[in-house]
Amino acid sequence: MIGVVVRNIPRTGPETLAALAGFGVSTVHEAQGRFGLVKPYMRPIWPGARIAGNAVTVLAQPGDNWMLHVAVEQCKPGDIVVVACTTDNTDGMFGDLLATSMKARGVAGLIIDAGCRDVDTLKEMGFPVWPRAISAKGTVKATIGSVNVPVVCAGALVNPGDVIVADDDGVVVVPHATAEAVAAKAKAREENETAKRAVLAAGTLGLDLYKMREPLKAAGLVYVDDLSDLKG
Amino acid sequence: MIGVVVRNIPRTGPETLAALAGFGVSTVHEAQGRFGLVKPYMRPIWPGARIAGNAVTVLAQPGDNWMLHVAVEQCKPGDIVVVACTTDNTDGMFGDLLATSMKARGVAGLIIDAGCRDVDTLKEMGFPVWPRAISAKGTVKATIGSVNVPVVCAGALVNPGDVIVADDDGVVVVPHATAEAVAAKAKAREENETAKRAVLAAGTLGLDLYKMREPLKAAGLVYVDDLSDLKG
Amino acid sequence: MIGVVVRNIPRTGPETLAALAGFGVSTVHEAQGRFGLVKPYMRPIWPGARIAGNAVTVLAQPGDNWMLHVAVEQCKPGDIVVVACTTDNTDGMFGDLLATSMKARGVAGLIIDAGCRDVDTLKEMGFPVWPRAISAKGTVKATIGSVNVPVVCAGALVNPGDVIVADDDGVVVVPHATAEAVAAKAKAREENETAKRAVLAAGTLGLDLYKMREPLKAAGLVYVDDLSDLKG
Amino acid sequence: MIGVVVRNIPRTGPETLAALAGFGVSTVHEAQGRFGLVKPYMRPIWPGARIAGNAVTVLAQPGDNWMLHVAVEQCKPGDIVVVACTTDNTDGMFGDLLATSMKARGVAGLIIDAGCRDVDTLKEMGFPVWPRAISAKGTVKATIGSVNVPVVCAGALVNPGDVIVADDDGVVVVPHATAEAVAAKAKAREENETAKRAVLAAGTLGLDLYKMREPLKAAGLVYVDDLSDLKG
Amino acid sequence: MIGVVVRNIPRTGPETLAALAGFGVSTVHEAQGRFGLVKPYMRPIWPGARIAGNAVTVLAQPGDNWMLHVAVEQCKPGDIVVVACTTDNTDGMFGDLLATSMKARGVAGLIIDAGCRDVDTLKEMGFPVWPRAISAKGTVKATIGSVNVPVVCAGALVNPGDVIVADDDGVVVVPHATAEAVAAKAKAREENETAKRAVLAAGTLGLDLYKMREPLKAAGLVYVDDLSDLKG
Amino acid sequence: MIGVVVRNIPRTGPETLAALAGFGVSTVHEAQGRFGLVKPYMRPIWPGARIAGNAVTVLAQPGDNWMLHVAVEQCKPGDIVVVACTTDNTDGMFGDLLATSMKARGVAGLIIDAGCRDVDTLKEMGFPVWPRAISAKGTVKATIGSVNVPVVCAGALVNPGDVIVADDDGVVVVPHATAEAVAAKAKAREENETAKRAVLAAGTLGLDLYKMREPLKAAGLVYVDDLSDLKG
Repeated sequence: MIGVVVRNIPRTGPETLAALAGFGVSTVHEAQGRFGLVKPYMRPIWPGARIAGNAVTVLAQPGDNWMLHVAVEQCKPGDIVVVACTTDNTDGMFGDLLATSMKARGVAGLIIDAGCRDVDTLKEMGFPVWPRAISAKGTVKATIGSVNVPVVCAGALVNPGDVIVADDDGVVVVPHATAEAVAAKAKAREENETAKRAVLAAGTLGLDLYKMREPLKAAGLVYVDDLSDLKG
Repeated sequence: MIGVVVRNIPRTGPETLAALAGFGVSTVHEAQGRFGLVKPYMRPIWPGARIAGNAVTVLAQPGDNWMLHVAVEQCKPGDIVVVACTTDNTDGMFGDLLATSMKARGVAGLIIDAGCRDVDTLKEMGFPVWPRAISAKGTVKATIGSVNVPVVCAGALVNPGDVIVADDDGVVVVPHATAEAVAAKAKAREENETAKRAVLAAGTLGLDLYKMREPLKAAGLVYVDDLSDLKG
Repeated sequence: MIGVVVRNIPRTGPETLAALAGFGVSTVHEAQGRFGLVKPYMRPIWPGARIAGNAVTVLAQPGDNWMLHVAVEQCKPGDIVVVACTTDNTDGMFGDLLATSMKARGVAGLIIDAGCRDVDTLKEMGFPVWPRAISAKGTVKATIGSVNVPVVCAGALVNPGDVIVADDDGVVVVPHATAEAVAAKAKAREENETAKRAVLAAGTLGLDLYKMREPLKAAGLVYVDDLSDLKG
Repeated sequence: MIGVVVRNIPRTGPETLAALAGFGVSTVHEAQGRFGLVKPYMRPIWPGARIAGNAVTVLAQPGDNWMLHVAVEQCKPGDIVVVACTTDNTDGMFGDLLATSMKARGVAGLIIDAGCRDVDTLKEMGFPVWPRAISAKGTVKATIGSVNVPVVCAGALVNPGDVIVADDDGVVVVPHATAEAVAAKAKAREENETAKRAVLAAGTLGLDLYKMREPLKAAGLVYVDDLSDLKG
Repeated sequence: MIGVVVRNIPRTGPETLAALAGFGVSTVHEAQGRFGLVKPYMRPIWPGARIAGNAVTVLAQPGDNWMLHVAVEQCKPGDIVVVACTTDNTDGMFGDLLATSMKARGVAGLIIDAGCRDVDTLKEMGFPVWPRAISAKGTVKATIGSVNVPVVCAGALVNPGDVIVADDDGVVVVPHATAEAVAAKAKAREENETAKRAVLAAGTLGLDLYKMREPLKAAGLVYVDDLSDLKG
Repeated sequence: MIGVVVRNIPRTGPETLAALAGFGVSTVHEAQGRFGLVKPYMRPIWPGARIAGNAVTVLAQPGDNWMLHVAVEQCKPGDIVVVACTTDNTDGMFGDLLATSMKARGVAGLIIDAGCRDVDTLKEMGFPVWPRAISAKGTVKATIGSVNVPVVCAGALVNPGDVIVADDDGVVVVPHATAEAVAAKAKAREENETAKRAVLAAGTLGLDLYKMREPLKAAGLVYVDDLSDLKG
């Protein structure tokens, strides 16, 4: 599926997106059954951004950012552009000009399994990017790829229109069909964690709160007073 | 030594710990003869923290944080939890709930040769962590490991009760038995460096301050005026 | 070429240096035809520094910083010290004492394909360093290398006297002979980009601004409305 | 999709599989438009194996090979088991006992984005494996994953029943629906290459055979006699 | 503990060593409770070697093989030299001259968390080495380390006199005190595996042999006929 | 220097090349003062090849092998093609068709800081390649680079016409101007090593042969009988 641009993709509404952004990556990842996380080498170029949006996907050749220009036209406000590459590459495929163009269309941010440059300017613009590397290496515009086809980005399958949630913990992909359900589960999980946090802050041990002592004993865990008790 | 929790570990007193924290990792590492440094892939999740504490060690399975919950009960105020893994793993074994529980017991920080998540919240809490990666990947609680046995964490041997010093330069392990002596040597080293710093700031060259010109000449170092003098 | 110190190197004047620093790494790298970039694993120890200077080159042995002390004497105000290593190494060859000495001679910063330590102090001093790693690991002073010979630093050839430009996007090497010409080209490029930025910010697509629609069609790019149109 | 075993998967017939195995990974990858290649860190444990088969997919937890035992029951003769892991892991999830069991069911080989052990015995058995690492590290059987759901293995999406081709060049995934068509294209490509090989072996340059001289000139390529002609 | 050579180390007798070599790394690692494995980046320079011996440990500086020469004198027939480095390093610290010297003293092989060279000659000599890299990079003899002190080699703690077992699956460390007991457990394990192998080869599934169906069901594993059954 | 092909390069005669091939990489690297080694990630695709030849250099774009076709025309019998890439890339830029073409012109082998494919066929053809990776990933022919300009290949500077020596220990670059002298030094070194080898094989220790006992003592090395002597 190289050489294709798909115009129509499903999109999740702004309320669900806002909710998912609010819960953050770790909670959403747990809420959907520990699935869909991109690899941890994808890091934000500046701390503190937290976004959720509908994925406009891009498949690019190494050292070639032609398809990013093609993708801009397909973006709507609140979308997140997700760039996969046909092979491992760290070239600086994205910089302040493309960011200016995307910002003009209301794009919320970029996930790119390649390099990003002009990071100072991007920070000033408040445009968040999660790349695999920061690199000034310029790219050509010589070979076509695709826009809005399913891609594997940093180890995670992303279908066009999937919801992307990104913050300082990383990036998670929520399938379009389950976005509402995941948001609901994340809400329940967060409420549950808030309650637990208070109990733990008051000094109750997780061993007791989670009733772990029995299963640990059943699993064979042994307590001794001193290291020397282990010998013999 | 899998499946054991040791209750008693030696601990160094708060004055020595405070002194070691003040000197910092690089000075302490030099003072104990350039030994005990964890690998440089272990980085703080936020800059500026500088701590020293007694090591409560944890040996965990990949993708399984059960033993971290076990470890909390063994901690005393000022301790530092040191997590090793039976194999290379970047999963987010530690997050804000465990941090809340550890903080409630007075734990000073965490060194983990695996992943950490909820980094925004941890920064707000002021709880410092030196992980090998930041990852939202959740973990199971299915297989036991050990607490307070000797572990290898990021290439360094850590015995329970060893002193851990951690700051923006990394993490160093000081054997319990030598903590006092190392603190004394670090103090002497720091005083010596302060004196040197003033001399160097005034423009004296290290070549002269350290009397290097003779040994460099003896080692065969040659000075020429131009690159072209090297040919022939 | 091990065991040699070269005293005379060409130097570019402060006006050209200031101009190149102003344009920054990504613009300069493009202006000289996408050449001379060091690998992206070289990252600044604190954000926001942007410098340009004449390269004083150092070839060091792994775990040995003797030649850095030798290099200081060869530095003039505005120089940048560039350290290559005979093999991959992350030891902390550079810290606050060497920085104090270099600052006393007016050195603008350091590029080191090895480790750096005392990063807190270096930040306080405002001395910028682009290392491959942060490591407290101390080094010996036992084996000679060279100063001001051509070196390969993080994948880039650096001749003594080449201009180094470094900022948050990375580090680029500009050959001494072309520094003026590259500065001129960078100026033209920057002006051109400023104009483009305004057009893009106003909502014009890069597809139209760069007249890409024709070549994309010629390259075979196909637009479809839906993913299902791709089957069959 | 964790916790599910799917019993029915599509399968491609033995003739097409044999044809694809014969063409090999590089030819098949080109024939389907340079798509579907797993990352090059996946290497065979012994040289010379060349197989094609229908994918039985496994999603496993790090350090846990429980689902591989589950997968065996779903295998038919000529299948290839493809193991993905929820996170990067090199533990030895597969060894001679599992290989014996798979061989008894006629499984052709294994692709595993984790570790493999008992490599001497596997070589003696003639059972080919393409792992990411060789490691004796044993695994637990504590947490469930899935069998025959879509997985991302070493960067490539694998749907159950996709055709896997593997040889010394690596591993490529051919979607089930296109297996016949890709085999046909690979045949045409191979015939074309055989013809070209003879021409090149006779001394004709690729520059002439592929008519590259004109486009190279148009792209700006310049010929000079000597390096010195480049200056000025 | 830098700068020390320890003359006396415990040694395990040849019968136990031969038994452990016969069982191999994977079986021994399981027999001692999945402990003591060096990281999987340590690979043999030629396939098929399988050895066990008493560890003579070496702590070396990066790029410096002086202590390997010191270690030779401490070796007895059947010993295995284990080299750790104070920092990550791939230099070729070991080649055919040192191998000749070690062979003359009856050394069985070398484990080195650094580089090895002259690999063709070492293969001809039948001297097995498990390095982290193959590199021709020569080393100096300028800085002392230690011989026969505890070291961390490729992530594993090695005490002088521990038993090292190495084969194509990697390298495992067996503490001296437990060598006999581990050999006995490995024997029992091997016999058990031989019996299982026959059952599996005859077509019995591991699911039945290991009685996994009940615990899998209890853990929540669900079987469906088709992928489409998963939706909704 | 992108977009240029240089026709004339210096070449070293076949006798010196044969001599350097005979000495091998490790000896040549030592003979020229431990300089010019490419990084150890460059490994032969089959063991046992040992070649020396004059470098025809290629600078390629990532994922683009156009310039390799251009380079073939510039090759003479006995040359070695050295491919550098403008950025890190593992794509399979070289396969059996290019090898057929190069072999027709008498090229001795290929060094490529990128990927190689068709490794089975290349082995059958007896054409040796030292790549950074084996990958079936196909490449485009869209963007020009250069032939016979200075390049940095896997960390080493290679000028066109430099002598390349490659074997199972890796790859070393000998500057054209010093090839004869290095061959002479390598010969002396080899004779010296042959003599040493006999002495070491007879049981003399390197400590005595190289007279290391005095300098080791001067450097502070201490001998003790037992580990327990170290405490206190």
